Amino acid sequence: MTTQPAEPSPRRGRGRPGHDQAAVLRAAVELFNRKGYDATSMGDLAKELGLTKPAIYHHVTSKEQLLGQALDDALDELTAVVTEASRDGAGGTSAYGRLREVLRRSVEVLVAHQSSVTLLLRVRGNSEVELAALERRRWLDDRLAALVTEAIAEGALRDDVPATLVSRLLFGMVNSLVEWYRPDGAYDRAMVADAITAIAFDGLAKHEA
Amino acid sequence: MTTQPAEPSPRRGRGRPGHDQAAVLRAAVELFNRKGYDATSMGDLAKELGLTKPAIYHHVTSKEQLLGQALDDALDELTAVVTEASRDGAGGTSAYGRLREVLRRSVEVLVAHQSSVTLLLRVRGNSEVELAALERRRWLDDRLAALVTEAIAEGALRDDVPATLVSRLLFGMVNSLVEWYRPDGAYDRAMVADAITAIAFDGLAKHEA
Repeated sequence: MTTQPAEPSPRRGRGRPGHDQAAVLRAAVELFNRKGYDATSMGDLAKELGLTKPAIYHHVTSKEQLLGQALDDALDELTAVVTEASRDGAGGTSAYGRLREVLRRSVEVLVAHQSSVTLLLRVRGNSEVELAALERRRWLDDRLAALVTEAIAEGALRDDVPATLVSRLLFGMVNSLVEWYRPDGAYDRAMVADAITAIAFDGLAKHEA
Repeated sequence: MTTQPAEPSPRRGRGRPGHDQAAVLRAAVELFNRKGYDATSMGDLAKELGLTKPAIYHHVTSKEQLLGQALDDALDELTAVVTEASRDGAGGTSAYGRLREVLRRSVEVLVAHQSSVTLLLRVRGNSEVELAALERRRWLDDRLAALVTEAIAEGALRDDVPATLVSRLLFGMVNSLVEWYRPDGAYDRAMVADAITAIAFDGLAKHEA
Protein backbone atom coordinates (compact mmCIF):
# COMPACT_ATOMS: atom_id res chain seq x y z
CA MET A 1 0.00 0.00 0.00
CA THR A 2 1.19 3.50 -0.72
CA THR A 3 -0.03 6.94 0.18
CA GLN A 4 0.90 10.34 -1.04
CA PRO A 5 3.28 12.03 1.38
CA ALA A 6 0.86 13.72 3.76
CA GLU A 7 0.67 17.48 3.55
CA PRO A 8 1.02 18.98 6.99
CA SER A 9 -2.60 19.77 7.83
CA PRO A 10 -3.30 23.49 7.99
CA ARG A 11 -5.44 22.89 11.06
CA ARG A 12 -2.69 21.41 13.22
CA GLY A 13 0.29 23.50 14.14
CA ARG A 14 2.31 21.05 16.23
CA GLY A 15 5.27 19.10 14.96
CA ARG A 16 7.58 20.27 12.25
CA PRO A 17 6.55 19.88 8.65
CA GLY A 18 8.95 18.49 6.09
CA HIS A 19 10.28 15.21 4.90
CA ASP A 20 10.94 13.71 8.32
CA GLN A 21 7.51 14.25 9.65
CA ALA A 22 5.87 12.97 6.48
CA ALA A 23 7.93 9.79 6.75
CA VAL A 24 6.99 9.38 10.41
CA LEU A 25 3.33 9.86 9.60
CA ARG A 26 3.47 7.35 6.76
CA ALA A 27 5.13 4.74 8.95
CA ALA A 28 2.65 5.39 11.75
CA VAL A 29 -0.36 4.90 9.49
CA GLU A 30 1.02 1.63 8.10
CA LEU A 31 1.65 0.42 11.63
CA PHE A 32 -1.78 1.48 12.92
CA ASN A 33 -3.38 -0.39 10.02
CA ARG A 34 -1.30 -3.49 10.58
CA LYS A 35 -1.45 -3.75 14.39
CA GLY A 36 -4.53 -1.69 15.20
CA TYR A 37 -4.29 1.86 16.52
CA ASP A 38 -4.99 1.04 20.14
CA ALA A 39 -2.43 -1.76 20.19
CA THR A 40 0.35 0.44 18.77
CA SER A 41 2.58 2.34 21.18
CA MET A 42 4.97 5.21 20.48
CA GLY A 43 7.68 2.70 21.42
CA ASP A 44 6.51 0.38 18.60
CA LEU A 45 6.61 3.29 16.18
CA ALA A 46 10.10 4.34 17.28
CA LYS A 47 11.28 0.75 16.76
CA GLU A 48 9.66 0.62 13.30
CA LEU A 49 11.55 3.78 12.33
CA GLY A 50 14.81 2.72 13.93
CA LEU A 51 14.64 5.68 16.31
CA THR A 52 14.92 5.84 20.07
CA LYS A 53 11.77 6.67 21.94
CA PRO A 54 13.01 10.15 22.93
CA ALA A 55 14.00 10.84 19.29
CA ILE A 56 10.49 10.21 18.04
CA TYR A 57 9.14 12.94 20.30
CA HIS A 58 11.34 15.28 18.32
CA HIS A 59 8.91 14.75 15.42
CA VAL A 60 5.51 14.32 17.05
CA THR A 61 3.90 15.16 20.34
CA SER A 62 1.67 12.12 20.58
CA LYS A 63 0.19 9.07 18.88
CA GLU A 64 -3.13 10.89 18.78
CA GLN A 65 -1.59 13.78 16.84
CA LEU A 66 -0.49 11.30 14.15
CA LEU A 67 -3.95 9.75 14.07
CA GLY A 68 -5.52 13.20 13.70
CA GLN A 69 -3.21 14.11 10.83
CA ALA A 70 -3.89 10.86 8.99
CA LEU A 71 -7.65 11.18 9.42
CA ASP A 72 -7.54 14.80 8.24
CA ASP A 73 -5.56 13.71 5.19
CA ALA A 74 -8.37 11.33 4.18
CA LEU A 75 -11.22 13.57 5.25
CA ASP A 76 -9.93 16.75 3.59
CA GLU A 77 -9.78 14.97 0.22
CA LEU A 78 -13.19 13.34 0.56
CA THR A 79 -14.73 16.58 1.76
CA ALA A 80 -13.37 18.44 -1.28
CA VAL A 81 -14.89 15.84 -3.63
CA VAL A 82 -18.28 15.83 -1.93
CA THR A 83 -18.43 19.62 -1.57
CA GLU A 84 -17.77 20.02 -5.28
CA ALA A 85 -20.46 17.46 -6.15
CA SER A 86 -22.98 19.07 -3.83
CA ARG A 87 -22.76 22.41 -5.60
CA ASP A 88 -26.30 22.69 -6.81
CA GLY A 89 -26.37 22.47 -10.58
CA ALA A 90 -23.09 24.36 -10.96
CA GLY A 91 -22.22 24.36 -14.64
CA GLY A 92 -25.68 23.03 -15.46
CA THR A 93 -24.75 19.51 -14.35
CA SER A 94 -27.57 17.23 -13.27
CA ALA A 95 -27.56 15.60 -9.82
CA TYR A 96 -27.21 12.30 -11.67
CA GLY A 97 -24.07 13.55 -13.45
CA ARG A 98 -22.64 14.84 -10.19
CA LEU A 99 -23.37 11.52 -8.45
CA ARG A 100 -21.54 9.58 -11.17
CA GLU A 101 -18.66 12.03 -10.84
CA VAL A 102 -18.45 11.81 -7.05
CA LEU A 103 -18.36 8.02 -7.28
CA ARG A 104 -15.45 8.15 -9.75
CA ARG A 105 -13.55 10.74 -7.77
CA SER A 106 -14.06 8.82 -4.51
CA VAL A 107 -12.34 5.85 -6.14
CA GLU A 108 -9.43 8.13 -7.03
CA VAL A 109 -9.14 9.44 -3.47
CA LEU A 110 -9.24 5.92 -2.06
CA VAL A 111 -6.51 4.74 -4.37
CA ALA A 112 -4.30 7.79 -3.81
CA HIS A 113 -4.79 7.86 -0.03
CA GLN A 114 -5.47 4.21 0.64
CA SER A 115 -3.67 3.94 3.98
CA SER A 116 -5.27 6.96 5.58
CA VAL A 117 -8.72 6.08 4.23
CA THR A 118 -8.27 2.55 5.59
CA LEU A 119 -7.52 4.03 9.00
CA LEU A 120 -10.50 6.37 8.72
CA LEU A 121 -12.87 3.51 7.93
CA ARG A 122 -11.74 1.65 11.06
CA VAL A 123 -12.27 4.52 13.47
CA ARG A 124 -14.72 3.54 16.22
CA GLY A 125 -15.00 6.75 18.26
CA ASN A 126 -12.68 5.77 21.12
CA SER A 127 -11.31 9.30 21.63
CA GLU A 128 -11.98 12.99 20.88
CA VAL A 129 -9.98 12.78 17.65
CA GLU A 130 -11.95 9.73 16.52
CA LEU A 131 -15.29 11.28 17.46
CA ALA A 132 -14.42 14.39 15.44
CA ALA A 133 -13.57 12.18 12.45
CA LEU A 134 -16.86 10.30 12.79
CA GLU A 135 -18.67 13.63 12.84
CA ARG A 136 -16.98 14.62 9.57
CA ARG A 137 -17.83 11.20 8.05
CA ARG A 138 -21.46 11.73 9.03
CA TRP A 139 -21.49 15.05 7.19
CA LEU A 140 -20.16 13.30 4.07
CA ASP A 141 -22.80 10.57 4.36
CA ASP A 142 -25.56 13.15 4.69
CA ARG A 143 -24.39 15.10 1.65
CA LEU A 144 -24.16 11.93 -0.44
CA ALA A 145 -27.64 10.80 0.58
CA ALA A 146 -28.95 14.27 -0.31
CA LEU A 147 -27.35 13.99 -3.74
CA VAL A 148 -28.99 10.59 -4.33
CA THR A 149 -32.33 12.06 -3.23
CA GLU A 150 -31.87 14.84 -5.76
CA ALA A 151 -31.02 12.41 -8.56
CA ILE A 152 -34.15 10.38 -7.77
CA ALA A 153 -36.28 13.54 -7.73
CA GLU A 154 -34.84 14.48 -11.13
CA GLY A 155 -36.23 11.20 -12.45
CA ALA A 156 -32.82 9.81 -13.38
CA LEU A 157 -32.71 7.04 -10.76
CA ARG A 158 -35.14 4.31 -9.79
CA ASP A 159 -37.26 5.34 -6.82
CA ASP A 160 -38.01 1.94 -5.26
CA VAL A 161 -34.92 1.89 -3.03
CA PRO A 162 -34.63 4.54 -0.28
CA ALA A 163 -31.97 7.19 -1.02
CA THR A 164 -30.10 6.62 2.25
CA LEU A 165 -29.84 2.91 1.56
CA VAL A 166 -28.67 3.53 -2.02
CA SER A 167 -26.04 5.92 -0.75
CA ARG A 168 -24.77 3.54 1.94
CA LEU A 169 -24.52 0.64 -0.50
CA LEU A 170 -22.85 2.63 -3.28
CA PHE A 171 -20.19 4.10 -1.04
CA GLY A 172 -19.90 0.79 0.81
CA MET A 173 -18.91 -0.73 -2.52
CA VAL A 174 -16.36 2.06 -3.07
CA ASN A 175 -14.98 1.84 0.48
CA SER A 176 -14.52 -1.92 0.21
CA LEU A 177 -11.66 -1.17 -2.19
CA VAL A 178 -9.36 -0.39 0.71
CA GLU A 179 -9.48 -4.06 1.70
CA TRP A 180 -7.99 -5.48 -1.47
CA TYR A 181 -6.90 -2.82 -3.94
CA ARG A 182 -3.19 -2.85 -4.80
CA PRO A 183 -1.80 -0.09 -7.04
CA ASP A 184 0.50 -2.65 -8.69
CA GLY A 185 -2.30 -5.20 -9.11
CA ALA A 186 -4.35 -6.20 -12.15
CA TYR A 187 -6.69 -3.21 -12.19
CA ASP A 188 -5.84 0.45 -12.53
CA ARG A 189 -8.01 3.07 -10.91
CA ALA A 190 -9.88 3.98 -14.10
CA MET A 191 -10.85 0.34 -14.60
CA VAL A 192 -12.17 0.10 -11.05
CA ALA A 193 -14.07 3.37 -11.37
CA ASP A 194 -15.59 2.17 -14.66
CA ALA A 195 -16.60 -1.15 -13.10
CA ILE A 196 -18.24 0.51 -10.10
CA THR A 197 -20.22 2.99 -12.17
CA ALA A 198 -21.23 0.25 -14.62
CA ILE A 199 -22.51 -2.00 -11.84
CA ALA A 200 -24.12 0.79 -9.84
CA PHE A 201 -25.97 2.53 -12.64
CA ASP A 202 -26.52 -0.07 -15.32
CA GLY A 203 -26.34 -3.34 -13.41
CA LEU A 204 -24.70 -6.62 -14.29
CA ALA A 205 -27.58 -8.43 -15.92
CA LYS A 206 -27.77 -8.41 -19.69
CA HIS A 207 -31.07 -6.80 -20.50
CA GLU A 208 -33.10 -7.68 -23.54
CA ALA A 209 -32.66 -4.78 -25.93
CA MET B 1 -25.12 -5.07 17.52
CA THR B 2 -26.37 -8.54 18.27
CA THR B 3 -25.28 -11.98 17.27
CA GLN B 4 -26.84 -15.34 17.67
CA PRO B 5 -25.41 -17.15 20.67
CA ALA B 6 -22.43 -18.89 19.13
CA GLU B 7 -22.67 -22.65 18.83
CA PRO B 8 -19.58 -24.28 20.25
CA SER B 9 -17.59 -25.04 17.14
CA PRO B 10 -17.30 -28.77 16.44
CA ARG B 11 -13.70 -28.26 15.42
CA ARG B 12 -12.46 -26.94 18.76
CA GLY B 13 -12.67 -29.15 21.80
CA ARG B 14 -11.31 -26.83 24.48
CA GLY B 15 -13.47 -24.90 26.90
CA ARG B 16 -16.82 -26.03 28.09
CA PRO B 17 -19.87 -25.50 25.90
CA GLY B 18 -23.04 -24.07 27.36
CA HIS B 19 -24.53 -20.76 28.30
CA ASP B 20 -21.53 -19.44 30.18
CA GLN B 21 -19.10 -19.96 27.38
CA ALA B 22 -21.47 -18.53 24.79
CA ALA B 23 -21.86 -15.40 26.92
CA VAL B 24 -18.10 -15.08 27.31
CA LEU B 25 -17.61 -15.47 23.57
CA ARG B 26 -20.27 -12.88 22.82
CA ALA B 27 -18.73 -10.36 25.21
CA ALA B 28 -15.25 -11.05 23.83
CA VAL B 29 -16.32 -10.44 20.24
CA GLU B 30 -18.02 -7.16 21.16
CA LEU B 31 -14.91 -6.06 23.02
CA PHE B 32 -12.54 -7.10 20.21
CA ASN B 33 -14.65 -5.11 17.74
CA ARG B 34 -14.78 -2.07 20.01
CA LYS B 35 -11.16 -1.93 21.21
CA GLY B 36 -9.38 -3.95 18.52
CA TYR B 37 -8.31 -7.55 19.09
CA ASP B 38 -4.63 -6.83 19.72
CA ALA B 39 -5.41 -4.09 22.23
CA THR B 40 -7.77 -6.29 24.27
CA SER B 41 -6.33 -8.32 27.13
CA MET B 42 -7.88 -11.21 29.04
CA GLY B 43 -7.89 -8.80 31.97
CA ASP B 44 -10.07 -6.37 29.99
CA LEU B 45 -12.42 -9.20 29.14
CA ALA B 46 -12.65 -10.36 32.77
CA LYS B 47 -13.45 -6.78 33.80
CA GLU B 48 -16.14 -6.50 31.10
CA LEU B 49 -17.78 -9.66 32.42
CA GLY B 50 -17.41 -8.74 36.09
CA LEU B 51 -15.15 -11.76 36.64
CA THR B 52 -11.74 -12.04 38.23
CA LYS B 53 -8.90 -12.87 35.87
CA PRO B 54 -8.49 -16.40 37.28
CA ALA B 55 -12.26 -16.99 36.93
CA ILE B 56 -12.21 -16.25 33.22
CA TYR B 57 -9.69 -19.04 32.65
CA HIS B 58 -12.35 -21.36 33.95
CA HIS B 59 -14.22 -20.67 30.69
CA VAL B 60 -11.52 -20.21 28.09
CA THR B 61 -7.88 -21.13 27.69
CA SER B 62 -6.81 -18.05 25.76
CA LYS B 63 -7.81 -14.94 23.89
CA GLU B 64 -6.80 -16.66 20.68
CA GLN B 65 -9.22 -19.52 21.36
CA LEU B 66 -12.05 -16.98 21.54
CA LEU B 67 -10.90 -15.35 18.30
CA GLY B 68 -10.78 -18.75 16.59
CA GLN B 69 -14.29 -19.62 17.74
CA ALA B 70 -15.70 -16.29 16.57
CA LEU B 71 -14.00 -16.54 13.18
CA ASP B 72 -15.22 -20.13 12.76
CA ASP B 73 -18.74 -18.99 13.59
CA ALA B 74 -18.67 -16.52 10.69
CA LEU B 75 -16.71 -18.72 8.30
CA ASP B 76 -18.80 -21.87 8.83
CA GLU B 77 -21.96 -19.99 7.87
CA LEU B 78 -20.44 -18.29 4.84
CA THR B 79 -18.84 -21.54 3.71
CA ALA B 80 -22.20 -23.32 3.86
CA VAL B 81 -23.82 -20.61 1.72
CA VAL B 82 -21.05 -20.59 -0.87
CA THR B 83 -20.75 -24.39 -1.02
CA GLU B 84 -24.46 -24.68 -1.70
CA ALA B 85 -24.29 -22.02 -4.43
CA SER B 86 -21.27 -23.66 -6.04
CA ARG B 87 -23.07 -26.95 -6.54
CA ASP B 88 -23.01 -27.11 -10.29
CA GLY B 89 -26.52 -26.76 -11.64
CA ALA B 90 -28.07 -28.72 -8.76
CA GLY B 91 -31.83 -28.55 -9.20
CA GLY B 92 -31.36 -27.15 -12.69
CA THR B 93 -30.53 -23.69 -11.34
CA SER B 94 -28.47 -21.40 -13.54
CA ALA B 95 -25.21 -19.89 -12.29
CA TYR B 96 -27.00 -16.54 -12.50
CA GLY B 97 -29.79 -17.82 -10.23
CA ARG B 98 -27.24 -19.22 -7.78
CA LEU B 99 -25.30 -15.96 -7.77
CA ARG B 100 -28.42 -13.96 -6.92
CA GLU B 101 -29.18 -16.48 -4.18
CA VAL B 102 -25.69 -16.40 -2.67
CA LEU B 103 -25.86 -12.61 -2.56
CA ARG B 104 -29.18 -12.73 -0.69
CA ARG B 105 -28.04 -15.42 1.70
CA SER B 106 -24.76 -13.59 2.43
CA VAL B 107 -26.82 -10.61 3.56
CA GLU B 108 -28.73 -12.92 5.91
CA VAL B 109 -25.52 -14.36 7.38
CA LEU B 110 -24.10 -10.88 7.87
CA VAL B 111 -27.17 -9.69 9.68
CA ALA B 112 -27.49 -12.81 11.85
CA HIS B 113 -23.76 -12.99 12.69
CA GLN B 114 -22.83 -9.34 12.41
CA SER B 115 -20.31 -9.23 15.26
CA SER B 116 -18.34 -12.27 14.22
CA VAL B 117 -18.37 -11.27 10.53
CA THR B 118 -17.17 -7.78 11.55
CA LEU B 119 -14.27 -9.40 13.39
CA LEU B 120 -13.56 -11.65 10.41
CA LEU B 121 -13.39 -8.71 8.02
CA ARG B 122 -10.81 -6.98 10.22
CA VAL B 123 -8.44 -9.92 10.46
CA ARG B 124 -4.98 -8.99 9.15
CA GLY B 125 -3.06 -12.25 9.51
CA ASN B 126 -1.16 -11.41 12.70
CA SER B 127 -1.24 -15.00 14.06
CA GLU B 128 -1.78 -18.63 13.04
CA VAL B 129 -5.50 -18.37 13.80
CA GLU B 130 -5.79 -15.24 11.65
CA LEU B 131 -3.81 -16.75 8.81
CA ALA B 132 -6.08 -19.81 8.82
CA ALA B 133 -9.12 -17.52 8.65
CA LEU B 134 -7.61 -15.57 5.74
CA GLU B 135 -7.02 -18.87 3.97
CA ARG B 136 -10.69 -19.79 4.38
CA ARG B 137 -11.74 -16.31 3.15
CA ARG B 138 -9.57 -16.78 0.08
CA TRP B 139 -11.37 -20.04 -0.68
CA LEU B 140 -14.71 -18.21 -0.47
CA ASP B 141 -13.46 -15.43 -2.76
CA ASP B 142 -12.25 -17.97 -5.30
CA ARG B 143 -15.56 -19.85 -5.33
CA LEU B 144 -17.51 -16.60 -5.73
CA ALA B 145 -15.31 -15.43 -8.60
CA ALA B 146 -15.79 -18.84 -10.26
CA LEU B 147 -19.55 -18.48 -9.94
CA VAL B 148 -19.45 -15.03 -11.57
CA THR B 149 -17.30 -16.46 -14.37
CA GLU B 150 -19.89 -19.18 -14.89
CA ALA B 151 -22.76 -16.67 -15.00
CA ILE B 152 -20.87 -14.59 -17.59
CA ALA B 153 -20.17 -17.72 -19.68
CA GLU B 154 -23.89 -18.57 -19.51
CA GLY B 155 -24.57 -15.23 -21.19
CA ALA B 156 -26.60 -13.90 -18.27
CA LEU B 157 -24.11 -11.22 -17.17
CA ARG B 158 -22.30 -8.47 -19.05
CA ASP B 159 -18.80 -9.53 -20.03
CA ASP B 160 -17.00 -6.17 -20.09
CA VAL B 161 -15.98 -6.26 -16.40
CA PRO B 162 -13.55 -9.00 -15.26
CA ALA B 163 -15.22 -11.67 -13.11
CA THR B 164 -12.80 -11.25 -10.20
CA LEU B 165 -13.44 -7.52 -10.09
CA VAL B 166 -17.23 -8.05 -10.25
CA SER B 167 -17.01 -10.55 -7.42
CA ARG B 168 -14.89 -8.29 -5.22
CA LEU B 169 -17.18 -5.30 -5.74
CA LEU B 170 -20.41 -7.24 -5.20
CA PHE B 171 -19.27 -8.84 -1.98
CA GLY B 172 -17.56 -5.61 -0.96
CA MET B 173 -21.00 -4.00 -1.13
CA VAL B 174 -22.46 -6.83 0.98
CA ASN B 175 -19.61 -6.75 3.50
CA SER B 176 -19.94 -3.00 3.95
CA LEU B 177 -23.20 -3.73 5.78
CA VAL B 178 -21.31 -4.65 8.93
CA GLU B 179 -20.25 -1.02 9.27
CA TRP B 180 -23.70 0.46 9.63
CA TYR B 181 -26.46 -2.15 9.70
CA ARG B 182 -28.58 -2.15 12.86
CA PRO B 183 -31.20 -4.89 13.32
CA ASP B 184 -33.49 -2.35 14.98
CA GLY B 185 -32.87 0.28 12.29
CA ALA B 186 -35.00 1.44 9.36
CA TYR B 187 -34.25 -1.50 7.03
CA ASP B 188 -34.95 -5.17 7.59
CA ARG B 189 -32.72 -7.78 6.03
CA ALA B 190 -35.10 -8.55 3.15
CA MET B 191 -35.15 -4.88 2.19
CA VAL B 192 -31.36 -4.72 2.19
CA ALA B 193 -31.07 -7.94 0.18
CA ASP B 194 -33.61 -6.59 -2.34
CA ALA B 195 -31.72 -3.31 -2.64
CA ILE B 196 -28.38 -5.02 -3.18
CA THR B 197 -29.68 -7.39 -5.84
CA ALA B 198 -31.57 -4.55 -7.55
CA ILE B 199 -28.45 -2.36 -7.72
CA ALA B 200 -26.08 -5.17 -8.63
CA PHE B 201 -28.10 -6.79 -11.38
CA ASP B 202 -30.37 -4.09 -12.74
CA GLY B 203 -28.57 -0.89 -11.79
CA LEU B 204 -29.89 2.38 -10.46
CA ALA B 205 -30.38 4.30 -13.68
CA LYS B 206 -33.85 4.41 -15.15
CA HIS B 207 -33.53 2.90 -18.57
CA GLU B 208 -35.69 3.92 -21.48
CA ALA B 209 -38.20 1.09 -21.95
